[in-house]
Amino acid sequence: MTRPTGQMLIAGADVFGTGEKIRAVDPSTGAELEPAFGHGGADEVDRACTAARAAFADYRALPDAKRAEFLERIADRIESLGDALIERAHRETGLPVARLTGERARTTGQLRLFAEVVRAGSWSRARIDPAQPDRKPLPRSDIRRRQIPLGPVAVFGASNFPLAFSVAGGDTAAALAAGCPVVVKAHDAHPGTSELVARAVTGAVADLGLPPGTFSLLFGSGPELGIRLVTDPRIQAVGFTGSRSGGLAIAAAAQARPQPIPVYAEMSSTNPVFLLPGALAERAAEIADGFVTSLALGAGQFCTNPGLVIAVDGPDLRTFLESAVAAVADNRPSTMLTPAIARAYADGVARLSAHAAVEVLARGAESDLPNTCRAALLATDADSFASDTELQQEVFGACSLVVRCRDADQVRAVAEGLEGQLTATVHAAEADHAEAAELLPVLELTAGRILFNGWPTGVEVGHAMVHGGPFPATSDSRTTSVGTLAIERFLRPVAYQDVPASLLPGAIADGSCPGAVPIPDPARRNA
Amino acid sequence: MTRPTGQMLIAGADVFGTGEKIRAVDPSTGAELEPAFGHGGADEVDRACTAARAAFADYRALPDAKRAEFLERIADRIESLGDALIERAHRETGLPVARLTGERARTTGQLRLFAEVVRAGSWSRARIDPAQPDRKPLPRSDIRRRQIPLGPVAVFGASNFPLAFSVAGGDTAAALAAGCPVVVKAHDAHPGTSELVARAVTGAVADLGLPPGTFSLLFGSGPELGIRLVTDPRIQAVGFTGSRSGGLAIAAAAQARPQPIPVYAEMSSTNPVFLLPGALAERAAEIADGFVTSLALGAGQFCTNPGLVIAVDGPDLRTFLESAVAAVADNRPSTMLTPAIARAYADGVARLSAHAAVEVLARGAESDLPNTCRAALLATDADSFASDTELQQEVFGACSLVVRCRDADQVRAVAEGLEGQLTATVHAAEADHAEAAELLPVLELTAGRILFNGWPTGVEVGHAMVHGGPFPATSDSRTTSVGTLAIERFLRPVAYQDVPASLLPGAIADGSCPGAVPIPDPARRNA
Repeated sequence: MTRPTGQMLIAGADVFGTGEKIRAVDPSTGAELEPAFGHGGADEVDRACTAARAAFADYRALPDAKRAEFLERIADRIESLGDALIERAHRETGLPVARLTGERARTTGQLRLFAEVVRAGSWSRARIDPAQPDRKPLPRSDIRRRQIPLGPVAVFGASNFPLAFSVAGGDTAAALAAGCPVVVKAHDAHPGTSELVARAVTGAVADLGLPPGTFSLLFGSGPELGIRLVTDPRIQAVGFTGSRSGGLAIAAAAQARPQPIPVYAEMSSTNPVFLLPGALAERAAEIADGFVTSLALGAGQFCTNPGLVIAVDGPDLRTFLESAVAAVADNRPSTMLTPAIARAYADGVARLSAHAAVEVLARGAESDLPNTCRAALLATDADSFASDTELQQEVFGACSLVVRCRDADQVRAVAEGLEGQLTATVHAAEADHAEAAELLPVLELTAGRILFNGWPTGVEVGHAMVHGGPFPATSDSRTTSVGTLAIERFLRPVAYQDVPASLLPGAIADGSCPGAVPIPDPARRNA
Repeated sequence: MTRPTGQMLIAGADVFGTGEKIRAVDPSTGAELEPAFGHGGADEVDRACTAARAAFADYRALPDAKRAEFLERIADRIESLGDALIERAHRETGLPVARLTGERARTTGQLRLFAEVVRAGSWSRARIDPAQPDRKPLPRSDIRRRQIPLGPVAVFGASNFPLAFSVAGGDTAAALAAGCPVVVKAHDAHPGTSELVARAVTGAVADLGLPPGTFSLLFGSGPELGIRLVTDPRIQAVGFTGSRSGGLAIAAAAQARPQPIPVYAEMSSTNPVFLLPGALAERAAEIADGFVTSLALGAGQFCTNPGLVIAVDGPDLRTFLESAVAAVADNRPSTMLTPAIARAYADGVARLSAHAAVEVLARGAESDLPNTCRAALLATDADSFASDTELQQEVFGACSLVVRCRDADQVRAVAEGLEGQLTATVHAAEADHAEAAELLPVLELTAGRILFNGWPTGVEVGHAMVHGGPFPATSDSRTTSVGTLAIERFLRPVAYQDVPASLLPGAIADGSCPGAVPIPDPARRNA
């Protein structure tokens, strides 16, 4: 089936929601798309969570190789959807076909990379402290440790990545890799794309004969269905990518449960870019080109969009700004994801532009098309920036604020005053390294990823990636939502003391533990 | 100085608190001890946190070898306090000298084990994804990842381990090992012990010429000074061991901050012990001896005290109970840590004993001495246990409730209904392995540590230990408070993309990264 039907997929069954009916909107025309999707309610949340809990024991007990095969099968089935998926996603999001094709490759690559991680077995972080029966004054027991999955996970699809951060995106891949059943709440902005991908996942569940409750897809509003899902006692962790208000509401609901659970919410980031003097002197115009390309990419609808530029004022910064202003003014407007996002962008730019301490340097071209993003380049001074937190708020879209500083000390002071960020970027020439060395420790405390002489948009899916950062960039800075370490979000450690060999899980059994690290005896005393 | 003076130690300075004056009480006599200790207030919290924040940059930048030396110096200085420390701790807690001597060895061993971990460097969990300049369609950047410390940490001393879970206990050792300055709130039950140990830490700070704010000790009440400390914006994580109400109050305060922070609270656990039929048939009396020894150890004042026994009713269980009843009745009462704890224990046992569904099987001998613990062995049936959550509440002290079950299915049903636990213990003979194999997956979801044919008291400090578990055993099941993995509580990941070689931190520099794991290229695409 390569056309959406409007139905949720709950533990393998098609369910048409009896709540509010919604339709996707083609943001490039404002036209509503067929079919209608019915929102689910309490019954559907209960059904999905009951099935997920029932599936958990068998799903987590699967051999690593089978779980890996399942992830690969999901990837295969997403690819089998072919152009129908890309076309539907294009109509629902306004994102270009080339971008969506790349995003699909990232999504399937991500699933296959997690399959490799699962197959390698090291995800269980096995450790063995062997018994020491003759230790004095007390013998030591045999103690082994592995990680096990937390339980059913709720994943909230994001508006801006209809594939890579949505139904079978990073959180779903990481949770399924960890051994956790997943219940996805689809984003209302791309329900058809969500249904198609959910059919691919459900198909893979069936292909491998897994328990149907391993995966469900629900439609519904965040405040109603979403909070109900987060507070369902079967759900044991939550992955969310979206607004700060949405993330905070989910975190508060999770914390207020009789049993609080971890929430991994990626919320807001302005991704500061520091332009150091040597770099500006060497290549101001070139940096400006790269900056505007990154700023305007995908109408600026990236979590890592460069929304802040910080530099010492002077002739080289003015050269940078001249080029940037020209590039922004030339920027062709592009369609935003939804009418609401386009409105919020326009309101955010208007609010900043009206600020007494803000100067509008450039706007992108106007457009008669609906829901477009006119890029915006604004400027302020560091004193004003420091004195009004409103200037630090993210405006989601292709808007960036240049903060002019008196000197290097003020650049560092601005860095020290920033809220938590997903990324911090430094443009530095050889001559700037002393200054960069002073800035680096400040940025480490502020951001999850630090880049030199590049642009923060484009998040590599690898083993070393950190897509996360201190609050409010995320609700939990100790993890990443992109890359293989994301599997650890959905795991917890268990120790096994003197468990008979025949009962030990494979990951920590004698001689059969690919990931086990037998650590030399530290001969510690047990008091 | 081997006698306490009553002063706090804030960033190396002696400060006598101007708030409420408190004195330690010798629980074995009820007598107040010299000197008086003055509680600190808002000014002292501010002073300690300002100094901790100021110390953070230099402290975290120390070479691993120097931080390791610091931890070892703390251990040396604690040992140099000699008998004076043990004597003071004995008078303040009523704990036997032999136990405190063992606890001191555990505490110094723990510090030295963390020194080994720091020196080995693998704590930074370095990962390198090398650049692929020729990758199609897009080149890959050089991306490296390490872990860095969160920032200043608040540690709350526990009443029941005046050394191992207190001023220089597990949380402090892990936080200092991670590179985080520490501000300790001492437990009012052993202020003199706390001051002495704090002087050892402060001496080590001075010996190594570290920033004085690396360590501070405060006295004060939990609701006032404690919450002020948790909500200070400089504090970035909290370690707590104590009551459920205390832990929940701290977690709520941390979550309500403008910037929420992680709280690692170890709160409450009844540590179920499952006696399977084959084990009971083989060695009921022997198991009973081990059980009562574990139950009564240290007046039952362990987080891992076996407070629940679950078994199928029948002749072998009756044999077990006969032996256990005799051993409990013979048990000599021992002094509890504080008058308040002794009262709470007596109240808790009285409450359970008065419950309509509870039978009192045995009480320990009475005593004319103040603040003693009369061991208690109670029993109920599985249906009553399942229908009243009050029967699941921890009674801190040597009290255990036997839950009689009809059959193996009911044993498993009881296991499935349990709240989160630090430990779960199974006594199983060879003939029980099929039943144990069914129980094990249930217990994995309930507890942080699973033991076979042993007793949960006695927590080994090693690489594989997990002292933690699902809520309400702790507020965060993803970590441990004992063992080397505790260092991860106070770390978060940072990725470095294309950072020039001369600016890269040592842990992820080319060729000089003992802990780095260069992972083969997965050739993933970046969309």
